[in-house]
Amino acid sequence: MINKLKDEKVIKDPIHRYIHVQDTLIWSLIQTKEMQRLRRVKQLGMTNLTFPTAEHSRFTHSLGVYEIMRRILGIRENTNGWAITKDTEEYLVALSAALLHDVGHGPFSHTFEAVFDTDHEEYTKKIILDPHTEVNQILSQINADFPMKVAKVIDKSYENQVIVNLISSQIDADRMDYLLRDAYFTGVSYGTFDIERILRVMMPFGNTVVIEEKGMHAVEDHVMSRYQMYMQVYFHPVTRSAEVIVNQIFRRAKALYLKGYQFKHELFLLIPFFERTVSLADYLKLDDDVMRYHFLIWQEEEDSILRDLCSRYMNRKLFKYCDYDPDTDSVFYEKLRQLYQEVGYNPEYYIQIHSSSDLPYDLYRPGKNQRLPITIKQKDNTLMELSECSPIVKAISGKTKTDIKIFYPEDIETKATEKQMIAIKKLISAHKRSKL
Amino acid sequence: MINKLKDEKVIKDPIHRYIHVQDTLIWSLIQTKEMQRLRRVKQLGMTNLTFPTAEHSRFTHSLGVYEIMRRILGIRENTNGWAITKDTEEYLVALSAALLHDVGHGPFSHTFEAVFDTDHEEYTKKIILDPHTEVNQILSQINADFPMKVAKVIDKSYENQVIVNLISSQIDADRMDYLLRDAYFTGVSYGTFDIERILRVMMPFGNTVVIEEKGMHAVEDHVMSRYQMYMQVYFHPVTRSAEVIVNQIFRRAKALYLKGYQFKHELFLLIPFFERTVSLADYLKLDDDVMRYHFLIWQEEEDSILRDLCSRYMNRKLFKYCDYDPDTDSVFYEKLRQLYQEVGYNPEYYIQIHSSSDLPYDLYRPGKNQRLPITIKQKDNTLMELSECSPIVKAISGKTKTDIKIFYPEDIETKATEKQMIAIKKLISAHKRSKL
Amino acid sequence: MINKLKDEKVIKDPIHRYIHVQDTLIWSLIQTKEMQRLRRVKQLGMTNLTFPTAEHSRFTHSLGVYEIMRRILGIRENTNGWAITKDTEEYLVALSAALLHDVGHGPFSHTFEAVFDTDHEEYTKKIILDPHTEVNQILSQINADFPMKVAKVIDKSYENQVIVNLISSQIDADRMDYLLRDAYFTGVSYGTFDIERILRVMMPFGNTVVIEEKGMHAVEDHVMSRYQMYMQVYFHPVTRSAEVIVNQIFRRAKALYLKGYQFKHELFLLIPFFERTVSLADYLKLDDDVMRYHFLIWQEEEDSILRDLCSRYMNRKLFKYCDYDPDTDSVFYEKLRQLYQEVGYNPEYYIQIHSSSDLPYDLYRPGKNQRLPITIKQKDNTLMELSECSPIVKAISGKTKTDIKIFYPEDIETKATEKQMIAIKKLISAHKRSKL
Amino acid sequence: MINKLKDEKVIKDPIHRYIHVQDTLIWSLIQTKEMQRLRRVKQLGMTNLTFPTAEHSRFTHSLGVYEIMRRILGIRENTNGWAITKDTEEYLVALSAALLHDVGHGPFSHTFEAVFDTDHEEYTKKIILDPHTEVNQILSQINADFPMKVAKVIDKSYENQVIVNLISSQIDADRMDYLLRDAYFTGVSYGTFDIERILRVMMPFGNTVVIEEKGMHAVEDHVMSRYQMYMQVYFHPVTRSAEVIVNQIFRRAKALYLKGYQFKHELFLLIPFFERTVSLADYLKLDDDVMRYHFLIWQEEEDSILRDLCSRYMNRKLFKYCDYDPDTDSVFYEKLRQLYQEVGYNPEYYIQIHSSSDLPYDLYRPGKNQRLPITIKQKDNTLMELSECSPIVKAISGKTKTDIKIFYPEDIETKATEKQMIAIKKLISAHKRSKL
Repeated sequence: MINKLKDEKVIKDPIHRYIHVQDTLIWSLIQTKEMQRLRRVKQLGMTNLTFPTAEHSRFTHSLGVYEIMRRILGIRENTNGWAITKDTEEYLVALSAALLHDVGHGPFSHTFEAVFDTDHEEYTKKIILDPHTEVNQILSQINADFPMKVAKVIDKSYENQVIVNLISSQIDADRMDYLLRDAYFTGVSYGTFDIERILRVMMPFGNTVVIEEKGMHAVEDHVMSRYQMYMQVYFHPVTRSAEVIVNQIFRRAKALYLKGYQFKHELFLLIPFFERTVSLADYLKLDDDVMRYHFLIWQEEEDSILRDLCSRYMNRKLFKYCDYDPDTDSVFYEKLRQLYQEVGYNPEYYIQIHSSSDLPYDLYRPGKNQRLPITIKQKDNTLMELSECSPIVKAISGKTKTDIKIFYPEDIETKATEKQMIAIKKLISAHKRSKL
Repeated sequence: MINKLKDEKVIKDPIHRYIHVQDTLIWSLIQTKEMQRLRRVKQLGMTNLTFPTAEHSRFTHSLGVYEIMRRILGIRENTNGWAITKDTEEYLVALSAALLHDVGHGPFSHTFEAVFDTDHEEYTKKIILDPHTEVNQILSQINADFPMKVAKVIDKSYENQVIVNLISSQIDADRMDYLLRDAYFTGVSYGTFDIERILRVMMPFGNTVVIEEKGMHAVEDHVMSRYQMYMQVYFHPVTRSAEVIVNQIFRRAKALYLKGYQFKHELFLLIPFFERTVSLADYLKLDDDVMRYHFLIWQEEEDSILRDLCSRYMNRKLFKYCDYDPDTDSVFYEKLRQLYQEVGYNPEYYIQIHSSSDLPYDLYRPGKNQRLPITIKQKDNTLMELSECSPIVKAISGKTKTDIKIFYPEDIETKATEKQMIAIKKLISAHKRSKL
Repeated sequence: MINKLKDEKVIKDPIHRYIHVQDTLIWSLIQTKEMQRLRRVKQLGMTNLTFPTAEHSRFTHSLGVYEIMRRILGIRENTNGWAITKDTEEYLVALSAALLHDVGHGPFSHTFEAVFDTDHEEYTKKIILDPHTEVNQILSQINADFPMKVAKVIDKSYENQVIVNLISSQIDADRMDYLLRDAYFTGVSYGTFDIERILRVMMPFGNTVVIEEKGMHAVEDHVMSRYQMYMQVYFHPVTRSAEVIVNQIFRRAKALYLKGYQFKHELFLLIPFFERTVSLADYLKLDDDVMRYHFLIWQEEEDSILRDLCSRYMNRKLFKYCDYDPDTDSVFYEKLRQLYQEVGYNPEYYIQIHSSSDLPYDLYRPGKNQRLPITIKQKDNTLMELSECSPIVKAISGKTKTDIKIFYPEDIETKATEKQMIAIKKLISAHKRSKL
Repeated sequence: MINKLKDEKVIKDPIHRYIHVQDTLIWSLIQTKEMQRLRRVKQLGMTNLTFPTAEHSRFTHSLGVYEIMRRILGIRENTNGWAITKDTEEYLVALSAALLHDVGHGPFSHTFEAVFDTDHEEYTKKIILDPHTEVNQILSQINADFPMKVAKVIDKSYENQVIVNLISSQIDADRMDYLLRDAYFTGVSYGTFDIERILRVMMPFGNTVVIEEKGMHAVEDHVMSRYQMYMQVYFHPVTRSAEVIVNQIFRRAKALYLKGYQFKHELFLLIPFFERTVSLADYLKLDDDVMRYHFLIWQEEEDSILRDLCSRYMNRKLFKYCDYDPDTDSVFYEKLRQLYQEVGYNPEYYIQIHSSSDLPYDLYRPGKNQRLPITIKQKDNTLMELSECSPIVKAISGKTKTDIKIFYPEDIETKATEKQMIAIKKLISAHKRSKL
């Protein structure tokens, strides 16, 4: 049942040098069409408009998470420290869940989900459990219960919580891979940490995963790396500007469709999303290419708002931004809307408040559930939560640093009169001065 | 006229750490829609099916070539060694040509051009010269002749051959960037060389660029790096298999269209290419997304050949391959076609001979014109072609190492009878044994 | 007077790729015997007994500090932002001070100074000012006042405090080089930060150096890198154990000499230090080799303490350690001394309390004077000290985390009876348990 | 007997990230005084006078060779491909020989051996076999025959030639480590190759080690890396100049001693070498520190030649050089000697012909025996020597590229008259012109 490949196969990867595959199951899962679709979904969405080399896919990230899991389980192998040996079904549950944890992600994930009310974690489970997917058919070859076990790891209800922890806690295979990978592909120097050391100081303890005390500083460094990546990459305002525009494109297209607007070109792939009748098969057809194809052709639509927003995204004519405090700046906001309205910009689509919750330690990403904290095992076997040991982690822990901005187009010269331009400029610069 | 930006702008890049932009012209060119399109064209086409992280775009490569040119011209600045100072039009010609040298590339470049008879270098010149492009409009702001100067650098007819050399010779800014970049993004270790040293030993000499003798080994190392990248990455047979499939998709779709087949979904963007009535505007709408969008929807076409080939590409069910010698293996080839025909595979689309010409030093890539050789300037100022000084370079120089393979599907179990399967297997394995 | 080299010279360096030298003065200074001596003084003292590859010298660090200074002054060159152009004496003052800032360091710096009451900063100034040194003779060729100017930068009294800041503040060329260099040569991943970005956000402001607000996170990352290097490398207890032993060797040798002990082999180079009659010429003869030569030959001395301690250092038989709290553990300490005394170990040399003050942000290293803090320039031009803006930096700022340990030999089986061994083991393990 | 450590121990290393030690034997061997001595012997001798950061020791290289051996034997572990499992004595033979292969190296290895007629390989075997060394005592704990087995691996007579091959062939653990390490610590980019891939394509075949055909290009790249390291680092003329000077120092000191010269300071450690009565204990006292200590104090000797040569080495006042062809340049050579003699320089010590044999593929380093060639295993199991498959390797194979130079001091202004200076300059520049 636990078939090993005759010869180990390897896939080149700059982060882990090679991805090593020894199990027939894993090799087959990688070849499924559901996994191959992830080649066409960028890991960092529109971040490449800010960091142009951030073009890596969720596919390579998924391979990386699998590889880290494989290495974790190999490290304490001699002593059977994880109590999961290579010839057991449990081992395959852990590896499969690591490989498949993101298989339900769609294009422009976060933004898409907000408008179309989908949930990638739900789709991950569906892909694993639905008998029509290649993924399910391969998992079922192990045995009939196997897909459900993998799905339970995804929704954190799996009995062996150690495996759940290794995939979704504050310091798991997922986070370790994406930090290293995002740093490598953006080219920033912040995401580095000593992964070899962390793998060595992680250990199972009862039904959870803890960090040996001697590894405290290595873990602290990992948390700090993540903090820096959030500050400098993930929450970069230029990326947020692109997100605002994509969000408006989705909203506008949906609104047009629902009010019976005749699109110039057919858009059959998107109709189930507009009409909220999405099947798994519909969902699995979407990828970044499909979305950008529509943005491309919508540049020729009659509707000037959709046309303009798509053109902005495709040609990177993004919105500018300024800080916004809901307690004090509502007058400014209303005035700004009014001025843009006068110029001929519909403020529903052109003036957008966007709030970014910044919780490097407590939360994964906005909208996600709380993850398990990092626990340090003291020499006397008592456990302590990381922020209790580390003043640095405490300093950033549990604090919601919400950054709220207003995004608006600045390149309005073709529509605005000179007088309107001056009025808008004055309003914004007065607002910015007030923020100093 | 030569406007400098008030503050230098920088773009993050893992290869050069930062791309530095000091000239208003360059900053404006980067923002054009023609340059932004390159974000949606992969530098290495379908190589990511072999090296999954090879997902980088021609856009970032173009920035890199520009940055190397900028650094080259900065190195001998104090002595005005290149006779091109920063406040001259000539400087902007060099930088613009470096940035724009690939702007005419389309999706799946080489394969697309073979079927649709387009030429990316011609399109590069058109984009520079056509008054409807944003690129041309910006270049023309320097002066009316300026676009033509840049276009002449592209087709190597520019008077100052030193600039031509820096962009298209055997050791130019283009090659230096793509070797380092392709190595970084595939994760292989072969493409590295000491770029800082090479930049320091390059110098103008009359109307050409030469290498000082002391830099001979550094240049030799660069040529060897390129050789290894060709051997191990660019000519990898799995990538060639993907190329074969894309080629067949293009051929099949075109053939269907020309014989009046009714496609299920509209394909208006491709019609000018099928009908050979392509305008520059048509050309500029194409990118990888558009092509893959069609591959995606064609998976649902009536025509079983198109449907199957697209599904193979999208889900990475590629063809297998074996060596082929036209002098001795024609009987094998005909027999193979016949057997596949019997199973129900049209051999026109399913059995494909593919030849790869491998000329690491003499030629850039198959189909390209000869590039200028590398010249070493001896201490006594005499010039010597590199392969005369270096026995290693001589060993790989001027030799056409053509590797010919036959590509065929191996996963034919759904259509073939067991007897047919055995016959095909026997034929192929006998052929492979004969090649040992 | 400001002679530039005909051709720029370069020196290979893994941290900065190349060290670039354009000034005759700098090239001549590098060739002086005082600078060459630094090749024989390890940058990290005995850290290589913990991290074996930490074998890099103060010479290469000095070149690195010079190179960073050269790059800083080059960055705002176009706008003359630093008001120090390349053809001025001020420029040479800055470069010379950067290159020479560590020239007075002796072997095993900190430990040596503690026993022999020398001060490397004083010697740096003497080497610059004493007319018998090659350094002084070369500096004086610029003009008679020039050496004094350089010396004033070293003792922070130079009028242009911007230069002083660039060499000795919380974020200066010295620290930037040593963090990157120590990380590279130990192989740890903690010391990395984005030096290019930091150089770009540093700017002069009045008579000081400040950081532009947009660079706050990059600087924060630099401070965190330093914190991690202190925690994981600089204060590693195994290194401290080696320091304890070297300290005892120095103390023992000095004590023996002063009481008239007859050394087996001549030790003329050390006598001035024992007798406190050290001249500059005496000082400049010392390096790591000389010290280790003596440790080598003292392994054959009559005196069993000196012999044993030297053998421990040379063969890395270091002391073990346990935590110590002066408020509660004095009984343990006295008991431990007594037990070792009974076995035949002189506790003056074999039981050692060692305290490490850990002040990552406020202080450079223990015993040094306060450095200038890091100041962030807000958009409205007001200045703010870094720890006021950054909660992370605040978390580690100004807190003296003193770690006190007792060091003792554990390998005492040749001298101790079994009963003595058991008594000592019991005492120590009871103490360790009490610390959990 | 095959004791494993309770917990694996790790040592930080930038090349392999960590050195992993699982065997008690290996851990004990690392702690021996004979191994610890290698911390004080530089891997690249005086190369740090050319590449200043080349300060790494033979100790860290030895750990690296051990680590590569450990990884090689781990790779085919599942299939027991190497027929050497972790719980066997054979495994320990392989690891011990890898760790100890350089333990007999002395300071300034090659140069020292030439003058004092010692042989580091002989000393390696003595250290392993002599019952007075710690190394022998630890090896003997495995069993009485064990040291002899390890020694036989060193002199290539061990029965299991697979182990011999893994330590001393054209592509062994030794070469793989030193190329990567020397590249890292000098900072050059030439020494890199894909070690993971090479480890995966190495396999035992009968009584030897071969490379699978698919790994041919990776191995070719390794050979080319080595070629570049020889050309650009190992045979750098500035390093050869330092070697010439050290050679002359050794010769002069020995000559002075033998003719009864009274040295100012005692030199007891060197006397056995001068008198050729060296015991193993004498040999093991030498290291780089001892040699440089003598160079330091000899700067104060009466004898002006010894004094001057030592001062040149310590302060890096090296000799200059020009090409020399014994067939045509003997008149020039004699004339040069005569002119220097007239100035007062003894040409026996100041004019030196130095020949460097450059055999990147056939030979390891000058003076070593032929190593086993690299063999490629074709798909049909026939074997082919690498240079038969690779035209690049053929191009550099078996060709002795001997580079002969004359080294001489140029800084002779204190002794020479102006007329003498001019005569020497004219002679040398005429010679150099004749070489163009």
